[in-house]
Amino acid sequence: MSAGPSTGTVPTTAGGRAGPAGASVAGLMAEIADVGRDDARGGYSRPVYSVAEHELREWFIDQASRRGLDVESDRNGILWAWWDAPGADRRDAVVTGSHLDSVPGGGAFDGPLGVASALIAIDRLRERGLTPSKPLALAVFPEEEGSRFGVACLGSRLLTGLIDPDRARTLRDPEGNTFADVTAKAGLDPRFLGPDPEAVGRIGSFVELHVEQGRGLIDLGQPVAVGSTILGHGRWRITITGQGNHAGTTLMEDRRDPLVAAAAIVQAAREAALRHSGARATVGRIVPVPGGTNVIASSVSLWLDVRHADDAVTAAVVERIHADARRAAAVEGCSLELREESLSPTVHFDPALRHRLGELLPDAPVLPTGAGHDAGVLAAALPTAMLFVRNPTGVSHSPEEHVEDDDAEAGALALAGVLEGLAGRRV
Amino acid sequence: MSAGPSTGTVPTTAGGRAGPAGASVAGLMAEIADVGRDDARGGYSRPVYSVAEHELREWFIDQASRRGLDVESDRNGILWAWWDAPGADRRDAVVTGSHLDSVPGGGAFDGPLGVASALIAIDRLRERGLTPSKPLALAVFPEEEGSRFGVACLGSRLLTGLIDPDRARTLRDPEGNTFADVTAKAGLDPRFLGPDPEAVGRIGSFVELHVEQGRGLIDLGQPVAVGSTILGHGRWRITITGQGNHAGTTLMEDRRDPLVAAAAIVQAAREAALRHSGARATVGRIVPVPGGTNVIASSVSLWLDVRHADDAVTAAVVERIHADARRAAAVEGCSLELREESLSPTVHFDPALRHRLGELLPDAPVLPTGAGHDAGVLAAALPTAMLFVRNPTGVSHSPEEHVEDDDAEAGALALAGVLEGLAGRRV
Repeated sequence: MSAGPSTGTVPTTAGGRAGPAGASVAGLMAEIADVGRDDARGGYSRPVYSVAEHELREWFIDQASRRGLDVESDRNGILWAWWDAPGADRRDAVVTGSHLDSVPGGGAFDGPLGVASALIAIDRLRERGLTPSKPLALAVFPEEEGSRFGVACLGSRLLTGLIDPDRARTLRDPEGNTFADVTAKAGLDPRFLGPDPEAVGRIGSFVELHVEQGRGLIDLGQPVAVGSTILGHGRWRITITGQGNHAGTTLMEDRRDPLVAAAAIVQAAREAALRHSGARATVGRIVPVPGGTNVIASSVSLWLDVRHADDAVTAAVVERIHADARRAAAVEGCSLELREESLSPTVHFDPALRHRLGELLPDAPVLPTGAGHDAGVLAAALPTAMLFVRNPTGVSHSPEEHVEDDDAEAGALALAGVLEGLAGRRV
Repeated sequence: MSAGPSTGTVPTTAGGRAGPAGASVAGLMAEIADVGRDDARGGYSRPVYSVAEHELREWFIDQASRRGLDVESDRNGILWAWWDAPGADRRDAVVTGSHLDSVPGGGAFDGPLGVASALIAIDRLRERGLTPSKPLALAVFPEEEGSRFGVACLGSRLLTGLIDPDRARTLRDPEGNTFADVTAKAGLDPRFLGPDPEAVGRIGSFVELHVEQGRGLIDLGQPVAVGSTILGHGRWRITITGQGNHAGTTLMEDRRDPLVAAAAIVQAAREAALRHSGARATVGRIVPVPGGTNVIASSVSLWLDVRHADDAVTAAVVERIHADARRAAAVEGCSLELREESLSPTVHFDPALRHRLGELLPDAPVLPTGAGHDAGVLAAALPTAMLFVRNPTGVSHSPEEHVEDDDAEAGALALAGVLEGLAGRRV
């Protein structure tokens, strides 16, 4: 437990919600089904420290308290709900959890499924009469999506020192609020944001359950998988500069139109990724300047997202796109700049922990994921693992994301088995 | 002359500026070179009824008054400076002029060149001892660019009844101010905005001098051209709907990415325009939704601007792009909608007036323009014509727009010749 000044036990919320008796993952998910709905985009918009995400945190604190867990919020806004808080000498706690924030117009399950499943896993362990021999905790990490402040897994990065707290404090949301101001309003002291080696040192292993964000389990006909890797992932910003001009008066032959070059780059990204099995290359954001209907753009920025399990393939895909982009810009008489904004190598989850999960869940297939997760960030500091639960649409970061009730329950049972196996039975 | 309550003679501004003796177009342009500079964008930002545009109007009133012209502001905020105001029975006035407002970050010449050249043309006629046999006036039209209230040529549209005054009154600028409020602050009575058949009826012909917004005169090595047509011009909005999904977890094979289809459409627009000499097709605005770096877009909107002198060619270009767009969307498993947002047929300037200008300026080539102008709007109500002055950069709606001093002077001389020829010499 951190001794930082912002750490404290959160008071239990009194309330009339149903207690854990007879609870299910689907029942818990139904309790929060109306929080943060986004009528414009569909699905949910639950930015970190928004009213909606705050309501979800209160709900988690209430649910954890009903289960007799001791809840604390640490200096980085991470919630910890302890079944037997560890003494200062214990460095073997088993922790599970996920996040409650969402992308704009996201699905119901990305994040909350892992939190609800953790609560139900505790119920299942209690029903079996388990008293764990190691400390056990549920954790909720803030700003996993990076949708508000632009840095994914911000809470776990701060915890483990993977982001400079000075940089974190000055991050701004789309309205211009700094992370320092927003955390202060949320009751934290922004001066104490940052690495918390004591909190990290308590943890022996971390297991995150998450809705699958692809079609692996659909194709395998299985409800739950064990995670193997998180794909290496980079973001590059490409800026193409041409000649802004009048759309009506400028002959086609006289144009240096950066949007025509950008169009070729979008297609080059698709083609470069298709040359390597399992590679992904995406342009989801493109901004022409000035962006007028009757104006040839003077410049265009586009953002390139590339991922592959083999970091050398990621580099090769980007190199090929860069070469094609330079050619497309030159054909159009434009200049081009490519800048790396971030690059994370592939995360291989702890082999020993993954092997242990394989023993505990012998039927579960082993799957990689292309999405980033707090478990991937924490992997730099301690043994981590993931469980994935089948998503029958295969669609993620979208209202179409889904999990069947039976699969959600199977996921919680699998997580309970893993926690029991890792934490042991006190004798 | 309108008898509307907002009409009145504007008092002459006393001031220490240089009189018309020895004036030149370049000298007049230098007088306003510091008005409305835009340090952020470069060039000038002179939105209608802004401080900058108001200062330019005051400058025009001053310059016209120094030349002994009677200046009035009519019910629509159009300034008229009369050399011999017509009696109620005269319907043959010769009018020239242009506008003083600019696009954001525009050049110095788009608009003001036509106003300064009109003032200098009056000087040249006076120097020749001309007394015109027809009434002669200079006009300044507000909101030609449509940059503040979104409707181009708003002044001339109101004058000729081509826009419903109720709609005009409720137009809003980017800060949310209505056109009614802004015109009231500028001293007009917004109740009297609207068609003014009496003011239109006075005019026998209108000739607008304007900086060329393309490279026609560069290629011909000539300083001044007579306008033939304003290209027909349409705007279409294309919406492509695919499958929003996670950029990291979605295999390339499973994607229905509307931005990949949009990229093909941008290229199809270029190719379709190149199939027809003189056709222009531009995508300058493209908006992916949700527009996140790590999200495959669920939909993309793009705006297509197509122009050609032959309206049948414009239709053929759009039809071809539409067919290619449907194919590109189908290949990507996306749906596509194309909606016409506006369509203006090609304006052919009055043939008799154009023939007369050809006689008066036998060396001037005849050129079409791709840009809209008040002369194009007024063409629906009376004979209009245009003169274009060489722009050595060929660039428009940009700080790079330029006119050499000698060419500006040649333009004013050509305009003087046209006015003399049209207005006749009183004997």
